[in-house]
Amino acid sequence: MKPYAEMSKDELAAEISLLKKEYRRFQNMELHLDMSRGKPCQEQLDLSMGLMDVLDSSSDLTCEDGTDCRNYGQLTGIEEARELIGDMMENNHKDIIIYGNSSLNVMYDTVSRAFTHGIMGSTPWCKLDKVKFLCPVPGYDRHFAITEYFGIEMIPVPMTSTGPQMDLVEKLVAEDEAIKGIWCVPKYSNPQGISYSDETVRRFARLEPAAPDFRIFWDNAYGMHHLYDDKQDYLIEILAECKRAGNPDLVYKFASTSKITFPGSGIAALATSPNNMEDIRNQLRNQTIGHDKVNQLRHVRFFKDIHGMVEHMRKHADLLRPKFEMVEKTLDEQLTGLQIGTWTKPLGGYFIHFESLPGCAKSIVGRAKKAGVIMTGAGATWPYGKDPNDNSIRIAPTYPSEQDLALASSLFALCVKLVSAEKIYAEKEA
Amino acid sequence: MKPYAEMSKDELAAEISLLKKEYRRFQNMELHLDMSRGKPCQEQLDLSMGLMDVLDSSSDLTCEDGTDCRNYGQLTGIEEARELIGDMMENNHKDIIIYGNSSLNVMYDTVSRAFTHGIMGSTPWCKLDKVKFLCPVPGYDRHFAITEYFGIEMIPVPMTSTGPQMDLVEKLVAEDEAIKGIWCVPKYSNPQGISYSDETVRRFARLEPAAPDFRIFWDNAYGMHHLYDDKQDYLIEILAECKRAGNPDLVYKFASTSKITFPGSGIAALATSPNNMEDIRNQLRNQTIGHDKVNQLRHVRFFKDIHGMVEHMRKHADLLRPKFEMVEKTLDEQLTGLQIGTWTKPLGGYFIHFESLPGCAKSIVGRAKKAGVIMTGAGATWPYGKDPNDNSIRIAPTYPSEQDLALASSLFALCVKLVSAEKIYAEKEA
Repeated sequence: MKPYAEMSKDELAAEISLLKKEYRRFQNMELHLDMSRGKPCQEQLDLSMGLMDVLDSSSDLTCEDGTDCRNYGQLTGIEEARELIGDMMENNHKDIIIYGNSSLNVMYDTVSRAFTHGIMGSTPWCKLDKVKFLCPVPGYDRHFAITEYFGIEMIPVPMTSTGPQMDLVEKLVAEDEAIKGIWCVPKYSNPQGISYSDETVRRFARLEPAAPDFRIFWDNAYGMHHLYDDKQDYLIEILAECKRAGNPDLVYKFASTSKITFPGSGIAALATSPNNMEDIRNQLRNQTIGHDKVNQLRHVRFFKDIHGMVEHMRKHADLLRPKFEMVEKTLDEQLTGLQIGTWTKPLGGYFIHFESLPGCAKSIVGRAKKAGVIMTGAGATWPYGKDPNDNSIRIAPTYPSEQDLALASSLFALCVKLVSAEKIYAEKEA
Repeated sequence: MKPYAEMSKDELAAEISLLKKEYRRFQNMELHLDMSRGKPCQEQLDLSMGLMDVLDSSSDLTCEDGTDCRNYGQLTGIEEARELIGDMMENNHKDIIIYGNSSLNVMYDTVSRAFTHGIMGSTPWCKLDKVKFLCPVPGYDRHFAITEYFGIEMIPVPMTSTGPQMDLVEKLVAEDEAIKGIWCVPKYSNPQGISYSDETVRRFARLEPAAPDFRIFWDNAYGMHHLYDDKQDYLIEILAECKRAGNPDLVYKFASTSKITFPGSGIAALATSPNNMEDIRNQLRNQTIGHDKVNQLRHVRFFKDIHGMVEHMRKHADLLRPKFEMVEKTLDEQLTGLQIGTWTKPLGGYFIHFESLPGCAKSIVGRAKKAGVIMTGAGATWPYGKDPNDNSIRIAPTYPSEQDLALASSLFALCVKLVSAEKIYAEKEA
């Protein structure tokens, strides 16, 4: 099919008429499908049911160092868990704090602590007139929600195929002391599935921020989440790189097992330098006596070691790969040549990103919703939910069944066509 | 034996000589005993090993309302857990938020949220020149650590046998808008084991604070922790009483299963009014997607209902009762009549409180330590760790074995005698 923009008005009108008929057909199906959030599907959750078996009433819940996991203590986590998660995060176990069930909570706490008490002796952010964060866009709505909640001004920085536009990042952090942080999902980014290039990571580690309390919030949520065995993105380990660059304290790195075992019942962690660690420990000891060590032990005994986790992630990949490929195939078949949108084909992570014609994203998502398919709200990938180009849509293919996903992605492609055709028709008429 | 103060100098010198000999005998035993923290003992932890069996890989981890506990969601907890913990806290399940593994963390977060965002629209505490808390003394050191960490000025209020001195509490909160909260352990208080009288609770519910954002931090940590079946303290339910008094939003009530199942691997909760709940929910949704629902379900399936929990608490009591009685018996035998200290005989909770002669607590704890018995640091029961009378010592009899406890409490009584005798001797000499 030729590009919509090259069609005559009559051709477009005929196409729109056909698309509307097709859309009504979908509406009559009374679908209730959800492609909005990055949730594992039931089959993925089933992969971790063995977690429920590794501990029973006959188990010894004692760590190698003698810690009884059932009692109070171990503020930074049991050693076995720090080892396992250290391997997962590619960090030394000494640089790891194991937290509770949610890395989002760790990120919130990290911002909140900087807000109330400052970072390593600097002025608490609540005492400053202005605090700003850089937000690579499109990005993760829950990151933006944290900074928005704290009244932190968010400055969008465009993403490129190799990560955030680093010229701009370097310039902004160097010249504005109010910029205290940047949100990053460096590997299989949310929502594009982009992994930062070696050069990008090296430039991050060599940032020269005006603010001594500037930190990179490095959310490595999808470090283990490859879709393919033979095609995998690789990421330079940022803590080591910061150390090499003489900026050891520049980064807070976050991760969790939420999308490895059970979301909400996994373990989360932070990796950072000894200085930052000391700063955090001094706060954390006022906040809690320790996190859930039994669940830490459960995870360690389930995976045994990093090899066990890698094997486990292969099973996730086997479930997710067909879903990603189905969405991509549907978009390829339905949209190729029409010049009404582009989309990413990530090698891992939880999302596909669709970039529509400008001004169309809200309408596309709205149309899909009216036919029973929930997408992530248009605009969600931008700070304050305001996408100035109205062209960014996040597709989350993991949760629905393949059968549902076939329907949902077909409907989505149809909505893209319908909204785009109407827009182009209106422009031709104007 | 007659009171030390009535002894002659020679009698005292002889007594001191005997006590020192006895003290050296203890030192030669090279003890390593810990009566410092309110930790359950191993036999108590063993009571809950069944928790590890209630879920296995064949279990259906779905809630009655269809929620899959393994996936994201349910910000305020699963309904079954809200029901169970609601019964435990004597509150409606709708007034309950289930959190993670630590009620201390919930209290920290509650103060932190007030600090960064204020309470129900009031000015965030970080924007105020001065914020103060009332601290009934003796009290819980980890409470005081939170307020100290936030730079909140702590004002001690004396405890009486019926709770905090309410005349003073009423006067202070009414006249000083900077007073934003009070720390309470209303039942089997830490460290005295005192339960607030009906009148005290009624007066709390009828406080007329100058600050609209004043809140009672009601840490009902030991609500279920009776030592006796036939002698139990009773506490008026504070949320209902506040509602009756026309002050529905006056209180945040905290509890957890830390000392019911496993400390650090239980579930914590907050109960409060619908207005406060709405305020908290608006914050919480930026902090996390939800807490550990699998562990919530595990607790529900283990206890089944509140009757199961009551039965379970009887087993704890059977283990703890002899320990409390042993300490009390030792103190009775060793110290009665000497007029060198008084101690509480609580009907529940985790502590016995010892009040020494003024100026002796630090020395007593120091002497015990030098003979291998760790007590809670003297002063810990006061804000900033500063006990102006140096006479408050918290005894935590739960963790050591009965055998160890016999030794530890004998040594403690000996240290009380030695330090008191030396003090009285020095005074006679002066």
